Amino acid sequence: MKTDEKLNMTMLCDFYELTMGNGYFQNGLKDRITYFDVFFRNVPDGGGFAIAAGLEQLVEYIQDLHFSEEDIQYLRGKNLFSEEFLEYLRHFHFTGDIYAVPEGTPIFPQEPIVTVRAPAIEAQLIETFTLLAINHQSLIATKANRIVRAARGRTVLEFGSRRAQGADGAVTGARAAYIGGCGGTACTISDELFGVPAGGTMAHAWVQMFDSQYEAFKTYCEIYPHNVVLLVDTYNTLKSGIPDAIRAFNDVLKPMGITKCGIRLDSGDMAYLTRKARQMLDEAGWTECTITVSNSLDEYLIQDLLLQDAKIDQFGVGERMITARSEPVFGGVYKLAAIEDEQGNIIPKIKVSENVGKITNPHFKKTYRLFNRCTGKAIADYICVHDEVVDDTKPLLLFDPNATWKKKTVMNYEARPLQVQVFRKGELVYDLPKLEDIRTYCAQQVDTLWEEVRRFDNPHTFYVDLSPRLFGIKQNLLQQNG
Amino acid sequence: MKTDEKLNMTMLCDFYELTMGNGYFQNGLKDRITYFDVFFRNVPDGGGFAIAAGLEQLVEYIQDLHFSEEDIQYLRGKNLFSEEFLEYLRHFHFTGDIYAVPEGTPIFPQEPIVTVRAPAIEAQLIETFTLLAINHQSLIATKANRIVRAARGRTVLEFGSRRAQGADGAVTGARAAYIGGCGGTACTISDELFGVPAGGTMAHAWVQMFDSQYEAFKTYCEIYPHNVVLLVDTYNTLKSGIPDAIRAFNDVLKPMGITKCGIRLDSGDMAYLTRKARQMLDEAGWTECTITVSNSLDEYLIQDLLLQDAKIDQFGVGERMITARSEPVFGGVYKLAAIEDEQGNIIPKIKVSENVGKITNPHFKKTYRLFNRCTGKAIADYICVHDEVVDDTKPLLLFDPNATWKKKTVMNYEARPLQVQVFRKGELVYDLPKLEDIRTYCAQQVDTLWEEVRRFDNPHTFYVDLSPRLFGIKQNLLQQNG
Repeated sequence: MKTDEKLNMTMLCDFYELTMGNGYFQNGLKDRITYFDVFFRNVPDGGGFAIAAGLEQLVEYIQDLHFSEEDIQYLRGKNLFSEEFLEYLRHFHFTGDIYAVPEGTPIFPQEPIVTVRAPAIEAQLIETFTLLAINHQSLIATKANRIVRAARGRTVLEFGSRRAQGADGAVTGARAAYIGGCGGTACTISDELFGVPAGGTMAHAWVQMFDSQYEAFKTYCEIYPHNVVLLVDTYNTLKSGIPDAIRAFNDVLKPMGITKCGIRLDSGDMAYLTRKARQMLDEAGWTECTITVSNSLDEYLIQDLLLQDAKIDQFGVGERMITARSEPVFGGVYKLAAIEDEQGNIIPKIKVSENVGKITNPHFKKTYRLFNRCTGKAIADYICVHDEVVDDTKPLLLFDPNATWKKKTVMNYEARPLQVQVFRKGELVYDLPKLEDIRTYCAQQVDTLWEEVRRFDNPHTFYVDLSPRLFGIKQNLLQQNG
Repeated sequence: MKTDEKLNMTMLCDFYELTMGNGYFQNGLKDRITYFDVFFRNVPDGGGFAIAAGLEQLVEYIQDLHFSEEDIQYLRGKNLFSEEFLEYLRHFHFTGDIYAVPEGTPIFPQEPIVTVRAPAIEAQLIETFTLLAINHQSLIATKANRIVRAARGRTVLEFGSRRAQGADGAVTGARAAYIGGCGGTACTISDELFGVPAGGTMAHAWVQMFDSQYEAFKTYCEIYPHNVVLLVDTYNTLKSGIPDAIRAFNDVLKPMGITKCGIRLDSGDMAYLTRKARQMLDEAGWTECTITVSNSLDEYLIQDLLLQDAKIDQFGVGERMITARSEPVFGGVYKLAAIEDEQGNIIPKIKVSENVGKITNPHFKKTYRLFNRCTGKAIADYICVHDEVVDDTKPLLLFDPNATWKKKTVMNYEARPLQVQVFRKGELVYDLPKLEDIRTYCAQQVDTLWEEVRRFDNPHTFYVDLSPRLFGIKQNLLQQNG
């Protein structure tokens, strides 16, 4: 990105948002109230749920929306847009409503993550960035959560900046990874901007800069006695790396009475080497020395290493988390769900497709998550028309919208709306939570899912059902448009 | 990212760059001259070559390097850094030399893409961003080049912003895709910032906003008669989409004498539908109407569609290009290659590894690309010590550094240095080429590669050889450190 000037994200839109915007403007459709939903169709990596993230960056974007004089000039040069439209853009700001699932919430296919109610021209213009912000961070938070769960309580650190897809991929990627449960990051600016705890000690270059490995280790211990993690694999981990580390610990830390320290391995067989390393450290009396590993890790390798009784306290995870390497796309879409006529009546809209999975859920909607009052576990999500109210003192009949004969009556449940209102008539009406609180909330909410839903492969499909009324509206529209 | 303030990329560094920097500072090593190489080990997707990109953003970063007062405050709060170091950072700027392969150049594993010669503390601090900039854009340029080559002369447009990994992933990603050969982008800001031609017309929402599809098409043609690409798959492509498009063309464009227009398909079987569409358009006299398709495309699907005689003029490629979905990581590394002693003698350094492929090439190096003077084709890359000069009026004996008995004498060749000097003593000494010129240069240089190297799968491995002198230095270091 250009680092020498403020980057105006308003222009980070697909060009067709502007041609459509100008078209709505010229056709009297610009103030037509529209409803758009952001939703996704498949959980990455075949998982059972995703984690919503990116809302804070969406909020900042909405608040900062504006076209600069340069933007207007640039657009004029395209010879496509009317002067009236360009004049309108000069004063453009967002005046609509936005509802969203709070960051850190487990989310499921087909349900609205973000819902925009706004004049057509505004709702259209924000499409690209809205998707980008939610797709990117939800992708990384979801992947990070998988990796963190594989580590079973051990700390996972985000180490991927150098392999991220662009600066923002690194910076907000580390934020999303923290929401998903990482304990910290190597990315300094993510700490400074967002409070993601950043840390780090040395690379191989440090060791190579000194005449000997021992000298490199000893010097490091002297400068940072309370922040020691020695990288032990520059030459030979077991023959010289760990022995030199122990010698430096003994020579520098021991006289200072320091018992907390660490080593890191970045290559070799992690199961074998960490078991050997643990033994050598323990025999030398360094039982509190932690072992961090950091080479090509993901949820599957971590799971395998722990099954093989590797002795690991911390995992540093790089490219496979920061790019969500195994499935690097979160396929959120932005689809028209309804428009209002001139009397303010909501007219539901549907997008038909030959692929049944691509047919949208029409109308301005509201989603409830139903929790069992005894276990606290999430039972199902229930999508209804915006003005339907679920009375959770009464039993609720659920049915599978794709297999309507499958029915289930839920009792003794609590129904909580999934979305909160974020903007009302263009004004921010939502207190953005602190990042730390989002992370805690995420862990709590993931705990409300049954283990079967949290399985990495072939998880149980969480129920996302439609109310009878919404289902009826959808069927009617399908009959009309099919 | 924070959009309400200038983002200072200086702090986009791994935290260990700072702990090492402070360590060098405290140990008198900060001004020790070091040489670091950026290189990569494997071509993504099993291809035969990659495309270098990202240098312009690296240059901007280097020129903008500085720590703000807030950055210093933040670092002080970590209680790890000496006041002298913080004071040093307050005046920090880059004073070293940087050599780099120009953007758009085909590159191969093991050869230096960027070489940094600088005081240890400076070379260390720029590691993370240097890798990030080169890794990201080289990844996307490489992927885009594969996709563009699959399209065999048809235009490929970049459509992926909404699925990009962060704002910068979209913005500089579109730039890299253009270098790789795309004809344009949907990303407006990439046009405004970098001159990547942006275009676009309508999404499904446009069609849904009107009472009928015909009305939506007709209105669009009236507003933009010279920029018509109608999206024909909102309801049913063959039954209503194309007939409504033809009707709108006939009613609006024909009376204006306009013959150039287009349709776009975003779903369904592209081979079948485009053949049918072509036939319908031709029969209606719209032979100049182009057909664009845009659903889940990559190099393999494009190749298949063309083999099946799909009638396609333009491809819009989204998530699979902007995230390089099939292999979303470009694994460039940053390794110490040499240091200077106090007399200015260069002392080569090597990083040994049990994995032979991970052993580095030591020393300050220079790479020549050898071209056959008759065919113009690239023969091999030849890496030597920085002060070696290849006299291309004389035969040159090449040998495979991994199989030294494999030898080949090259004659009638031209030897061109692969890197240019970009910074000298901290000053920019390189004229950054225009984006358009980088794109043209890229296409020309890819043409210097034999078809066998350009094959998508199992390509011929291009020779990257070491000079006898460099080979000898490497062997000696391996004997000492192995």
